[in-house]
Amino acid sequence: MTRIAFIGLGIMGLPMATNLVRAGHEVAGYNRGEAKRARFADAGGTAAGSVAEAVRGAEVVITMLPDSPDVEEVVLGPDGVLESAGAGALLVDMSTIAPATARTVAELAAETGVRAVDAPVSGGEQGAIDGTLSIMVGGEPADVEAARPLLEVLGGTVVHVGPSGSGQTVKAANQLVVAGTIQLVAEALTLLDAQGVELRSAVEVLSGGLAGSAILDRKAPGMLARRFAPGFRVDLHHKDLGIVLDSAREAGVVIPLGGAVAQLMAALRAQGDGHLDHSALLLGVERLSGK
Amino acid sequence: MTRIAFIGLGIMGLPMATNLVRAGHEVAGYNRGEAKRARFADAGGTAAGSVAEAVRGAEVVITMLPDSPDVEEVVLGPDGVLESAGAGALLVDMSTIAPATARTVAELAAETGVRAVDAPVSGGEQGAIDGTLSIMVGGEPADVEAARPLLEVLGGTVVHVGPSGSGQTVKAANQLVVAGTIQLVAEALTLLDAQGVELRSAVEVLSGGLAGSAILDRKAPGMLARRFAPGFRVDLHHKDLGIVLDSAREAGVVIPLGGAVAQLMAALRAQGDGHLDHSALLLGVERLSGK
Amino acid sequence: MTRIAFIGLGIMGLPMATNLVRAGHEVAGYNRGEAKRARFADAGGTAAGSVAEAVRGAEVVITMLPDSPDVEEVVLGPDGVLESAGAGALLVDMSTIAPATARTVAELAAETGVRAVDAPVSGGEQGAIDGTLSIMVGGEPADVEAARPLLEVLGGTVVHVGPSGSGQTVKAANQLVVAGTIQLVAEALTLLDAQGVELRSAVEVLSGGLAGSAILDRKAPGMLARRFAPGFRVDLHHKDLGIVLDSAREAGVVIPLGGAVAQLMAALRAQGDGHLDHSALLLGVERLSGK
Amino acid sequence: MTRIAFIGLGIMGLPMATNLVRAGHEVAGYNRGEAKRARFADAGGTAAGSVAEAVRGAEVVITMLPDSPDVEEVVLGPDGVLESAGAGALLVDMSTIAPATARTVAELAAETGVRAVDAPVSGGEQGAIDGTLSIMVGGEPADVEAARPLLEVLGGTVVHVGPSGSGQTVKAANQLVVAGTIQLVAEALTLLDAQGVELRSAVEVLSGGLAGSAILDRKAPGMLARRFAPGFRVDLHHKDLGIVLDSAREAGVVIPLGGAVAQLMAALRAQGDGHLDHSALLLGVERLSGK
Repeated sequence: MTRIAFIGLGIMGLPMATNLVRAGHEVAGYNRGEAKRARFADAGGTAAGSVAEAVRGAEVVITMLPDSPDVEEVVLGPDGVLESAGAGALLVDMSTIAPATARTVAELAAETGVRAVDAPVSGGEQGAIDGTLSIMVGGEPADVEAARPLLEVLGGTVVHVGPSGSGQTVKAANQLVVAGTIQLVAEALTLLDAQGVELRSAVEVLSGGLAGSAILDRKAPGMLARRFAPGFRVDLHHKDLGIVLDSAREAGVVIPLGGAVAQLMAALRAQGDGHLDHSALLLGVERLSGK
Repeated sequence: MTRIAFIGLGIMGLPMATNLVRAGHEVAGYNRGEAKRARFADAGGTAAGSVAEAVRGAEVVITMLPDSPDVEEVVLGPDGVLESAGAGALLVDMSTIAPATARTVAELAAETGVRAVDAPVSGGEQGAIDGTLSIMVGGEPADVEAARPLLEVLGGTVVHVGPSGSGQTVKAANQLVVAGTIQLVAEALTLLDAQGVELRSAVEVLSGGLAGSAILDRKAPGMLARRFAPGFRVDLHHKDLGIVLDSAREAGVVIPLGGAVAQLMAALRAQGDGHLDHSALLLGVERLSGK
Repeated sequence: MTRIAFIGLGIMGLPMATNLVRAGHEVAGYNRGEAKRARFADAGGTAAGSVAEAVRGAEVVITMLPDSPDVEEVVLGPDGVLESAGAGALLVDMSTIAPATARTVAELAAETGVRAVDAPVSGGEQGAIDGTLSIMVGGEPADVEAARPLLEVLGGTVVHVGPSGSGQTVKAANQLVVAGTIQLVAEALTLLDAQGVELRSAVEVLSGGLAGSAILDRKAPGMLARRFAPGFRVDLHHKDLGIVLDSAREAGVVIPLGGAVAQLMAALRAQGDGHLDHSALLLGVERLSGK
Repeated sequence: MTRIAFIGLGIMGLPMATNLVRAGHEVAGYNRGEAKRARFADAGGTAAGSVAEAVRGAEVVITMLPDSPDVEEVVLGPDGVLESAGAGALLVDMSTIAPATARTVAELAAETGVRAVDAPVSGGEQGAIDGTLSIMVGGEPADVEAARPLLEVLGGTVVHVGPSGSGQTVKAANQLVVAGTIQLVAEALTLLDAQGVELRSAVEVLSGGLAGSAILDRKAPGMLARRFAPGFRVDLHHKDLGIVLDSAREAGVVIPLGGAVAQLMAALRAQGDGHLDHSALLLGVERLSGK
């Protein structure tokens, strides 16, 4: 049993924190807005009144927040995690943020005696609910091992990929591949549909060969059924592709498809679909094609 | 036991024809060049001296050829399949060619009393050897069912996707998705490498989440080991992307990533790497990035 | 005074033929559809009842047709130019077609004793009216010189760029640059507008520097005024970009922006705007941006 | 005669400051590194020992610096322009920086009683030497009019395009169009060359029609002669395209060609050519095409 503070009870955070409760841990959860805290209390967790209240006395602090500025505010800001956490506490930031911010957080945490790892996830809402997320962890080996038992409650794959910030870099790569694969599947489906092919059979056979992917398995059914409720929102993927482009630019790496799909995700958002699932890239291809 | 003519004993055709021999069928194989015919005879098949010799008396004629003009010549040309095949024979073209050519072949075959289906494959050399290809079949339902027992010797997934030409359209969609996914993985690996992430761990974790794909499973190991022997050659994938672009243009479908990856595949070929496996798109990204 | 047959009295052909009449030449014009022939007669030309009637006895035959198949039919087909033209006649094809077709036409013309040059134009309807077209000519030097006096009636710039087919290759390059420049200007204008910049002033200053172009001078005013009547239709530019892509593919040249703008032009057409001026690429950028 | 401080005596700044001297103004110039100050003194200017020394007593302060952080340091930092400038002084920042930074500078200047306009330029080194730059000015009308007499010494086109920051937005649009046009010309030239067309004639005819541009006029000759000494460096244009992408992202505008050419400029830099003129995009196309 570990005393855990869990900050961020959104679409991903709430089921993750709930899984930790179910695994027998003592979890104090916090989110802005009483409704989300109440849902967590209903799920068996302890609703805390503030970040400080959640963090005080916790052995492990997990943060699951939307973007770099949120992490900076919640972790580094006044009344934030670092002010309230005891020396020796372990901070596990599972948000998707810029690798550079992750490195900064780890350095400032170290100055207050807090150990920190970056542990962003892939797998979406369903993976969060099922506890089957893929978790990519950056940090000191000992700290990663200390976090591992909790991370294995949350995910089916927990891999230490390198030093501080590496988890975020792998997540950026993940978001590049995921966005691009959705777009490719969207282009393929639109082409098949325009030529009168039976789409369900086509998806079946594509899935069985070299074109097979988790996107075809998990997202294509919703695309065919035209269900675009998130899931993972276009707005968030747009944000993540900004991290991808900055990261590639910083590293001097040229990513032509990454650059192209970032524009297409931006288009979807500009067209008012930021709240839909990222598989709505299909709508973008259909609009381009006048369908 | 079926009497089969198999035309085209290349990197794909030879193991496919051999699997049919092993399944107990009587297979007369033909390819230009004696060496390939000899290898087929070594594998237990019967080497025929010409297309006509192979086809005469066959119940099923399978063609596995590089491109549309080859199919037109071998099937429609003088001394070709249609001249030699008996009425009621079943022509199964497993080449990857333009959907429009497949429709023409089926129509001209019908005029000579030959039934024809288009049945291109995905899965590469390994899939051909293991008999685990994905096969996408277009044609009349009865003809597809007649072909199915043989196709199930060759592939693990055999799906009827629609009328004549549909198999080729699905194959075009497949080649679009495969080329794009390789390119995305190549961009991701180059980015990860430039930022000092441990690549094998990164591939492991990417494979376990929404970014997972057959490309990551089957091609990334070779990419990390820098083994680019084909497999499936850049030259052929370049040809296939030409079919994809023409097909999208004809259908009025806009494929921005398809258009981009076609240029990148063309670049690899222009740079002298047409003979390498298509996973060599990694080399293209590295060259663009000055690595 | 030269006896000229002029085949193709469309948006470009009519003012061109009219300029030749005004310059004192005897011009027999032909187009399918009586209305166009009547307009040419109103402009002082002689309306011919067929290609053959126009061509018989002409010293120079000028063709200005939409696409490669039209040229093949009108020039090479039954009752076509080559059947009716006398030995020693000069064929000046000013259509925009594939370089390979231009070379074929020249070869077949030579067999009948007709000299041929390819002389496609740039400059649009206004250039045709004003006689200020840019004309890029491919062919034998002597034939090009023979055509020059007439071409100088039609254009302000007449340049011999190489052997047969070279005119079409330069035209393909022209269409690549023009489409791309319109798209760049469209992206720039949409960006400026979204940020509240005064567009007329911005266009003025952009025109004065390294960003200056004929597109900014001649097309931006219409774009700002949202006048998209052709001018040069999206449908035709879409056709021309098909020639560009095929030409680059054949030559092993990689054109990333060419590939991208071809998709964007295809989108505009698929969205139902094929009949608008190519400067309507602005509408495409606005749709992508949800404006 | 105006007392002017000119900060930044680089490839652009030195000839600009020199033109102001020649026009009869009293110019105190400053740059890090004595060599550049000495060259300015040789040209008739007054070399100042520090920013503060240059700025003290100046009626107008002109800054011409590489990037946003430089402007922040020189203008806003300790011993910077705002600390030394007298109330009522006019700050004219001619650097190319992010529009957001330009707005911040103007606001902070206003708090110290200094009026500020952003006035980035286009036209390159030659335009700076000849005094024919295009200058796009953002700011209050009265301030822009106050700056105009000096700006007209430096440029042939001086246009007020809107409020504070607008000059930078127009410059961003300019850099988008310029980079894209160079790339289009590079693709066209590579295609023409591969097909054996005479390049000088082709450039002549392209220049005379709708494809005509300042890039064809001023950059193509150097590209044909393979002279890639700057001019305007790839490194700087790469920086500027970062501003373009951020600006478009912020405004919700989708720029597919902008995104693509940013990757190609990044490639050129990653390949070690950051020090060449941006017309070296030709080398990038040639490398992609294996030439």
